[in-house]
Amino acid sequence: MYYPEPISKLIDSFTKLPGIGPKTAVRLAFFVINMKDDDVFNFANALVNAKRELTHCNVCGNITDQDPCLICQDNSRDNSIICVVQDPKDVIAMERMKEFRGKYHVLHGAISPMDGIGPEDINVPALLNRLKDEEVKEIILATNPNIEGEATAMYISRLVKPSGIKATRIAHGLPVGGDLEYADEVTLSKALEGRRDL
Amino acid sequence: MYYPEPISKLIDSFTKLPGIGPKTAVRLAFFVINMKDDDVFNFANALVNAKRELTHCNVCGNITDQDPCLICQDNSRDNSIICVVQDPKDVIAMERMKEFRGKYHVLHGAISPMDGIGPEDINVPALLNRLKDEEVKEIILATNPNIEGEATAMYISRLVKPSGIKATRIAHGLPVGGDLEYADEVTLSKALEGRRDL
Repeated sequence: MYYPEPISKLIDSFTKLPGIGPKTAVRLAFFVINMKDDDVFNFANALVNAKRELTHCNVCGNITDQDPCLICQDNSRDNSIICVVQDPKDVIAMERMKEFRGKYHVLHGAISPMDGIGPEDINVPALLNRLKDEEVKEIILATNPNIEGEATAMYISRLVKPSGIKATRIAHGLPVGGDLEYADEVTLSKALEGRRDL
Repeated sequence: MYYPEPISKLIDSFTKLPGIGPKTAVRLAFFVINMKDDDVFNFANALVNAKRELTHCNVCGNITDQDPCLICQDNSRDNSIICVVQDPKDVIAMERMKEFRGKYHVLHGAISPMDGIGPEDINVPALLNRLKDEEVKEIILATNPNIEGEATAMYISRLVKPSGIKATRIAHGLPVGGDLEYADEVTLSKALEGRRDL
């Protein structure tokens, strides 16, 4: 025996989290043992509540504790423009910017034939339904700038085109504060391709 | 608003753990949301149980779920030799070696006048009681090889000497697999000082 059972169970639980190896798990477990009772209890509660109270918004697919989510409920936002993202975390990144005032649609993934993920496996059908029902004029495809994200954006834009709704893609280019010298070839070529009049 | 409340509470809880910053906390929280219900429930249980079921062994001070701990209960172990360590994790390091068959005593710290920690603030009085009651022939001082650990070892060895019990200190020297070239001066000087006949 190395650890009393309550410790080893806690270590096992920590090890299941991403980026936490056996040594970090031991460190965290021993830290928990020395934490205040209240803090540990709140932690346990937060875990169970996060699992129990959170659901996916029936409209946009975002993670929320009320359905429809606060963004979908917000009438001050522009219904005519939908930003399509892959992940709930992307919504948060967009909201942090505090500039976009339209609605969102969360796909929960991207099309990836290699992994057997087709358009039906992600939240695309719900998006098409929304486009039929709501008065949408533009969808901004803000999927990730990698192969799967590009393929997904391309696929959705083709589906949407016949209906006359504008489909746009967020720009590729150099990150602000970045250095031209260190930019990779593909990004640089995209930045050149996307150049604009000054 | 950025996160629904159940997520932000979970993020807060993760942020309280050592070595987990805000970004990692967000990543872990979203990972938990996608975990299986059972796993999350077990995690929450493990947290509460670790806090509730663990206590300090009345004999050696180690963290345990039964009192006295399994090591103190184990009659096949040598009662005449006690290894004094600073931390419960040190007991585990020693046990992993599978060579030491004596008992332990956990100090839960080291003497550190700078931080106002004296011998009464760590588990020293209980050690002295044990030395009176049990038939101990040797105590191995396995505190950490730093100033506080050395001071603690020195202090205990002086306390113990009059009673005729042997007090030994674990060896300083080069770590096995290490490189002489990269050894620091103090370690090298200790290694030279502790040289033995071949």
